[in-house]
Amino acid sequence: MKTTPRKPRLYRKRAKKAGLAPGTLVYVGEVQAEPVRITYIDYDEKQLQETQASKIEECFEFKETPTVSWINIDGLHDVPLIEKLGEHYELHPLMLEDVLSTVQRPKFEDYEQYVFVVLKMLRYNEERGGIDSEQVSLVLGPNVVISFQERIGDVFQPIRDRLRHAKGRIRKMGADYLAYALLDSIVDSYFAILEKLGERIEGMEDELVENPTEDTLQRIYLLKREMISLRRSIWPLREVISGFHRSESELVKETTDLYLRDVYDHTIQVIDTVEGFRDTASGMLDTYLSSVSNKMNNVMKVLPIIATIFIPLTFVAGIYGMNFEHMPELKWRYGYAAVWLIMITVFVAMIVHFKRKRWL
Amino acid sequence: MKTTPRKPRLYRKRAKKAGLAPGTLVYVGEVQAEPVRITYIDYDEKQLQETQASKIEECFEFKETPTVSWINIDGLHDVPLIEKLGEHYELHPLMLEDVLSTVQRPKFEDYEQYVFVVLKMLRYNEERGGIDSEQVSLVLGPNVVISFQERIGDVFQPIRDRLRHAKGRIRKMGADYLAYALLDSIVDSYFAILEKLGERIEGMEDELVENPTEDTLQRIYLLKREMISLRRSIWPLREVISGFHRSESELVKETTDLYLRDVYDHTIQVIDTVEGFRDTASGMLDTYLSSVSNKMNNVMKVLPIIATIFIPLTFVAGIYGMNFEHMPELKWRYGYAAVWLIMITVFVAMIVHFKRKRWL
Amino acid sequence: MKTTPRKPRLYRKRAKKAGLAPGTLVYVGEVQAEPVRITYIDYDEKQLQETQASKIEECFEFKETPTVSWINIDGLHDVPLIEKLGEHYELHPLMLEDVLSTVQRPKFEDYEQYVFVVLKMLRYNEERGGIDSEQVSLVLGPNVVISFQERIGDVFQPIRDRLRHAKGRIRKMGADYLAYALLDSIVDSYFAILEKLGERIEGMEDELVENPTEDTLQRIYLLKREMISLRRSIWPLREVISGFHRSESELVKETTDLYLRDVYDHTIQVIDTVEGFRDTASGMLDTYLSSVSNKMNNVMKVLPIIATIFIPLTFVAGIYGMNFEHMPELKWRYGYAAVWLIMITVFVAMIVHFKRKRWL
Amino acid sequence: MKTTPRKPRLYRKRAKKAGLAPGTLVYVGEVQAEPVRITYIDYDEKQLQETQASKIEECFEFKETPTVSWINIDGLHDVPLIEKLGEHYELHPLMLEDVLSTVQRPKFEDYEQYVFVVLKMLRYNEERGGIDSEQVSLVLGPNVVISFQERIGDVFQPIRDRLRHAKGRIRKMGADYLAYALLDSIVDSYFAILEKLGERIEGMEDELVENPTEDTLQRIYLLKREMISLRRSIWPLREVISGFHRSESELVKETTDLYLRDVYDHTIQVIDTVEGFRDTASGMLDTYLSSVSNKMNNVMKVLPIIATIFIPLTFVAGIYGMNFEHMPELKWRYGYAAVWLIMITVFVAMIVHFKRKRWL
Amino acid sequence: MKTTPRKPRLYRKRAKKAGLAPGTLVYVGEVQAEPVRITYIDYDEKQLQETQASKIEECFEFKETPTVSWINIDGLHDVPLIEKLGEHYELHPLMLEDVLSTVQRPKFEDYEQYVFVVLKMLRYNEERGGIDSEQVSLVLGPNVVISFQERIGDVFQPIRDRLRHAKGRIRKMGADYLAYALLDSIVDSYFAILEKLGERIEGMEDELVENPTEDTLQRIYLLKREMISLRRSIWPLREVISGFHRSESELVKETTDLYLRDVYDHTIQVIDTVEGFRDTASGMLDTYLSSVSNKMNNVMKVLPIIATIFIPLTFVAGIYGMNFEHMPELKWRYGYAAVWLIMITVFVAMIVHFKRKRWL
Repeated sequence: MKTTPRKPRLYRKRAKKAGLAPGTLVYVGEVQAEPVRITYIDYDEKQLQETQASKIEECFEFKETPTVSWINIDGLHDVPLIEKLGEHYELHPLMLEDVLSTVQRPKFEDYEQYVFVVLKMLRYNEERGGIDSEQVSLVLGPNVVISFQERIGDVFQPIRDRLRHAKGRIRKMGADYLAYALLDSIVDSYFAILEKLGERIEGMEDELVENPTEDTLQRIYLLKREMISLRRSIWPLREVISGFHRSESELVKETTDLYLRDVYDHTIQVIDTVEGFRDTASGMLDTYLSSVSNKMNNVMKVLPIIATIFIPLTFVAGIYGMNFEHMPELKWRYGYAAVWLIMITVFVAMIVHFKRKRWL
Repeated sequence: MKTTPRKPRLYRKRAKKAGLAPGTLVYVGEVQAEPVRITYIDYDEKQLQETQASKIEECFEFKETPTVSWINIDGLHDVPLIEKLGEHYELHPLMLEDVLSTVQRPKFEDYEQYVFVVLKMLRYNEERGGIDSEQVSLVLGPNVVISFQERIGDVFQPIRDRLRHAKGRIRKMGADYLAYALLDSIVDSYFAILEKLGERIEGMEDELVENPTEDTLQRIYLLKREMISLRRSIWPLREVISGFHRSESELVKETTDLYLRDVYDHTIQVIDTVEGFRDTASGMLDTYLSSVSNKMNNVMKVLPIIATIFIPLTFVAGIYGMNFEHMPELKWRYGYAAVWLIMITVFVAMIVHFKRKRWL
Repeated sequence: MKTTPRKPRLYRKRAKKAGLAPGTLVYVGEVQAEPVRITYIDYDEKQLQETQASKIEECFEFKETPTVSWINIDGLHDVPLIEKLGEHYELHPLMLEDVLSTVQRPKFEDYEQYVFVVLKMLRYNEERGGIDSEQVSLVLGPNVVISFQERIGDVFQPIRDRLRHAKGRIRKMGADYLAYALLDSIVDSYFAILEKLGERIEGMEDELVENPTEDTLQRIYLLKREMISLRRSIWPLREVISGFHRSESELVKETTDLYLRDVYDHTIQVIDTVEGFRDTASGMLDTYLSSVSNKMNNVMKVLPIIATIFIPLTFVAGIYGMNFEHMPELKWRYGYAAVWLIMITVFVAMIVHFKRKRWL
Repeated sequence: MKTTPRKPRLYRKRAKKAGLAPGTLVYVGEVQAEPVRITYIDYDEKQLQETQASKIEECFEFKETPTVSWINIDGLHDVPLIEKLGEHYELHPLMLEDVLSTVQRPKFEDYEQYVFVVLKMLRYNEERGGIDSEQVSLVLGPNVVISFQERIGDVFQPIRDRLRHAKGRIRKMGADYLAYALLDSIVDSYFAILEKLGERIEGMEDELVENPTEDTLQRIYLLKREMISLRRSIWPLREVISGFHRSESELVKETTDLYLRDVYDHTIQVIDTVEGFRDTASGMLDTYLSSVSNKMNNVMKVLPIIATIFIPLTFVAGIYGMNFEHMPELKWRYGYAAVWLIMITVFVAMIVHFKRKRWL
Repeated sequence: MKTTPRKPRLYRKRAKKAGLAPGTLVYVGEVQAEPVRITYIDYDEKQLQETQASKIEECFEFKETPTVSWINIDGLHDVPLIEKLGEHYELHPLMLEDVLSTVQRPKFEDYEQYVFVVLKMLRYNEERGGIDSEQVSLVLGPNVVISFQERIGDVFQPIRDRLRHAKGRIRKMGADYLAYALLDSIVDSYFAILEKLGERIEGMEDELVENPTEDTLQRIYLLKREMISLRRSIWPLREVISGFHRSESELVKETTDLYLRDVYDHTIQVIDTVEGFRDTASGMLDTYLSSVSNKMNNVMKVLPIIATIFIPLTFVAGIYGMNFEHMPELKWRYGYAAVWLIMITVFVAMIVHFKRKRWL
């Protein structure tokens, strides 16, 4: 029996927030041991500056500069830090509340001076054989992108590389293109997850045909459960990206629109694939059930056949085991042989009958 | 066997109303023993007055004042009282009819001078392990909010505290913000319910794997039933809140709009979670059924195997229990030993065969 | 076994109409023995006149008067009568065709000079334990409402009383309010049906848990069938009432609009409840099936256990029933006791094993 | 075993068309032995001329006349004939292609000078107990209606009669009313089919309760299959008729609009009924399955009970069939009677136990 | 046992693209051994030139000519070649990225100077009994159509023939008509696939009735799986073609619009058929399961009957096999005959009882 992977949580607590005034900043996730890491990259077409800030105040100067700045915050447990950032950049309290509420449903909101996107960064956790989810919030303002993550570690490395080495058009475009690039890399990373899931499903399909066990059922159930939670991360994305795409905010330039349409297409493709997986998983459940019942039927069928053959024969033997004084057959010379003859005849007739009925 | 919690009522009576003229005020709920409790809070940014009124007339003066007034009625069984209030504040008879008809579906209505919202306040009843539902009606007028509840006890305590201690922006904003805050605290309280349900589901999932009993089935069924009734309280909320949000009533100021959007998001999240629970509950039913059938199969499989092995052997024994006079084997010295040999051979062959077929 | 109530007809004949010119008046229902009954109430705020007419022509004078007239026709089998009425009031032939075609789907139509509504009046038939359906057509014209019913007996009595005693606002309002009141009383009467159905479902639920029989299944099936036919009467109502509500006919005054919105809400609530019942009925089917299978499993499980225990023991007894001459055990003094010992040991070991596996 | 009716074809070939230029006229149906029959009726309010034409050219003169002409073509296998007609009346090649492609989905198209409708004429084939489908195409032009049918024989006879005898308003109205009348008579004929199906379903329901056989299952399956194909003919009709109704073509006069709305209502009613049948058929499948399993359970339950009772008794008999020399009971005078006593006691105890558990 | 056809891949890898800048050209498919084949056809109404180009540069001159050019690329593994083509014709990098990403979902995009369509060309692979899919991208520009295919071999041969022999209107119309013709031939080829699938389904239906085996189940499951993947290719087509049809691009002339509407109809028909197949396949699964269970029931039923009959008889024989000294019956002269009589009576009674209960 393989180790059944841990189930994804069905519901993540946010109840400690209940009753607080809206806009009150409370971090609902697990508190990280490490301090919050602040990094920023400030660039234009000609030059780039990349620093790990020790204090949030270091990032404040970028508000006014014409260069594009990307401020990335890894860790949300230092609420005062985020409050300070919010105050300086004049972010709406409800926006910050959503940043900290890491059980947020993916969403897009347009706060005139800012555009705000919440979505889930997923990672396939090989160890426990499931999907880990982390909330990422992106704030796009004039010449600035602020990204908030729950933990250190992300899928943005290739973008940093492209920025550093001025690859592609990224350094030539504005903050909106950067925001797009971040979105794109998150959606792209979903494909890797789908691939893993696809492999897992195909593995289970083989197992189903070859040797379905009770454990297989548990794992199909787990897969369906994971699919439910995956869908909840991915479905709203459709709206989010199309909201971004269709938003009439002046922060999003027309040249970026084409790219957003592309991410939108990828999102649809991801959703499509997940739906396909769901159908397949349902099919697998059906197969499992009928495969188990088939196996059971095979056992159930063969055994009674044997019983059926031998019970009448045993009856015949029982007859001549009776102790009546007057049983003429017992004295007959060929009685014993005759009984054998009868029994063999019955036996053969039954086998032939069962064969003909295809029960054997 | 655990006590099966009481089922939620499938249908709450309202038939005593049939045939009455529309706008006739009839209270369809249970009559409370305690008298109706009237409390009001009257405030502006600088001062706040909070009183428990003994007569409804005490609340009438607020109609004209520029301060914001929140009149809260706990208990709907005193129809004349509600009629008087309605007359003074010029509330439409149909609106009052809905207030008293506590089997109302959540809804939003715009009566020009007033905006009217009906929704359900839910509470998890630990004792009977189910959800209790109470109807709350909110009337938002110029500088006044009137809330009607079926019973004393609600989820508005934090709002009262915020008002008293002038926490957050609530004292600075108008009646529309107060109405929003009430809505928000009701929707927020749903999250606590979902958490309870989530825990219950996870508990049942463990039970399912470890030791599914007939009682488990009853409880899954009950859960599904509770989900049906939960959905009926929550689904219409989407429309209600978006109706409020999109309403062009002059009673709702633009600054409050952003907050309503936020409640709307929470509502979607609640609905999403309930749907996720429903999928999970369906999956649990499947698991339960196949788990029970698996267990049954295990019993059914092992037993016939034993029968199958011993029936042919008993037949052999039966043969040599026959009393024919001419049975040469009986006289053979090694007859008995030979029979044992045959029987042991058959036994071993069968065991090997079954093992190979994986029936053992 | 209780008497299974009669099934609602799946399909009511209307084929005798096929091939006729549109607008040809043919009554497709059962012909009543009693003659058609014509009653009219003519009223304004100050006075009211109520008469049972012997000839349809008596109703013709109302066409021109400024008072509101309600002409009610009980029975549709007198086609010429209806033709005459139609001609005098200039009703469109297609409208009259729909009145007579009592298998009509509920619908709303706006014929400029008239507004036309078809819907179903339902009644719970205690005797056969099912729902009876009767088609009611309402024609709203300037200062006149004409209602057509299939049979004598309706749910309009309270409205007649309100008219007679000038209760509520009904005598002060126009014909549109009267039409609304008729609609409202029909929709209100659905709640009584739902209550009956709710009770029936709850009764069946108890039966399901306590003692499910084959008859229960039949009754669940019947209930689902009734639900299908109920839905067909009720679903289109949503459109009908919202069509009425949104219609821009000058016949419907603005003051009545608010009341129509109220009926609309009731309709939604009825639909909602029916959907809830449907979900519950499906759940009941699942419960029934697994309850029956559980019961079966209990029988199936205990019996083979007994067989399994005794078959090997019988085999042992069979061994020593053989008649070989050389069977040393038979001569051994304690042979018999030893066999008992073996058999008791096997017996106890099996019981313990089964207990441990929870098969007992 | 009744003869299982022939299944409707799942897919009708149209592949021979693949690769041809669009607008290429190819008839994909079965070639009829009889020649194509051309009939036309030319009429206005005062006179009517009805002829069976031997050559298609006879119909050409009607193009210019102010009288209304109805050209009906029975049989589509004479492609050049249809080509000639198309050329003279300037019908678009794609329209003609659709006429000949008899596997067309019902559709409505507006080609400015012409309005084009394709739909299915259904007939209940009593002989094979299924529904036959024939494609009918209607072209409505200025003062002309051209109808194409696959075979001789249709549901238009009553319309011809009404034309001939100038019954109703048909002779006074234009070509659009004629087109409507044809549509109406096709939709009307669906009701007869539904009636047949309804009867068949009700018959099967009785059979289900009284004596479900394996054949019943086959017939439920066939019914569902027929429903699938029926839906494919009927569902698109909704769009077709509403397309016709809403079309802003000048060919459709306002007076005809009211009639089209009426057909539309009938279509909705047909669709509604089919959906109701589908639900019922699904319910029947469930009932069948649980009825069969019930019956099986009854067999399965009684038999093991007998086995369970007699196996222990046989064991007891086996004990005293052993041949040990020292078996004191055998010598005891009342041994035999005692054994009988034990066996009867066990027997009665078991029966009582089973009765109490309701297994008997 | 027939060879089970290979399953279609659930998920095709595209992960190697993750992290690259958008617009980076990477071919994600299998690299073909053969070099990329470039062919072009350049034509107007009067003349046509058809060449297989050895270098992509040969196609560059067509950009400016007023004749219509169709450039067809078979094979996508030569990325620089495609890059060069893209540069010369000024195709957007995202468009080229989609061309190379052969796991693209069908889509339509309007890039002002170009209109871009991606779709799937399907082929029924007789050998492995499944559907092969190949991505085709079409770029429609002013007077030019560029088509990209993954492999040599396509369904465009009839179009080439029509071009060469100036059949139909294709040589007289512009590039938009050519693009339409390519789309049309792809959609047309789906009908052949549907026909194959239809035949396969009908074959399986016969098999289901006659002799369902475990292999049948595997094949139904495989069919459902194939349907899932077929739907994913076909469903988006609806949007694609309607996007093309409704696009306001100047590249699509009005005369072509009518033709696009025609393809759209075909697409709907394909989708309809696939949905019908899906319903049928689900029905087949139900039939299979109940057919298997029926067969099983037949085995299960007959066998216990035999056991039930003989077990009591064997008990009777066991009684008189006991060795009590005092068993008066044993000494009675007609004891043996009496036992036979009893046994035959019991036997006959049981057979009659079973017959009456219809268990035999």
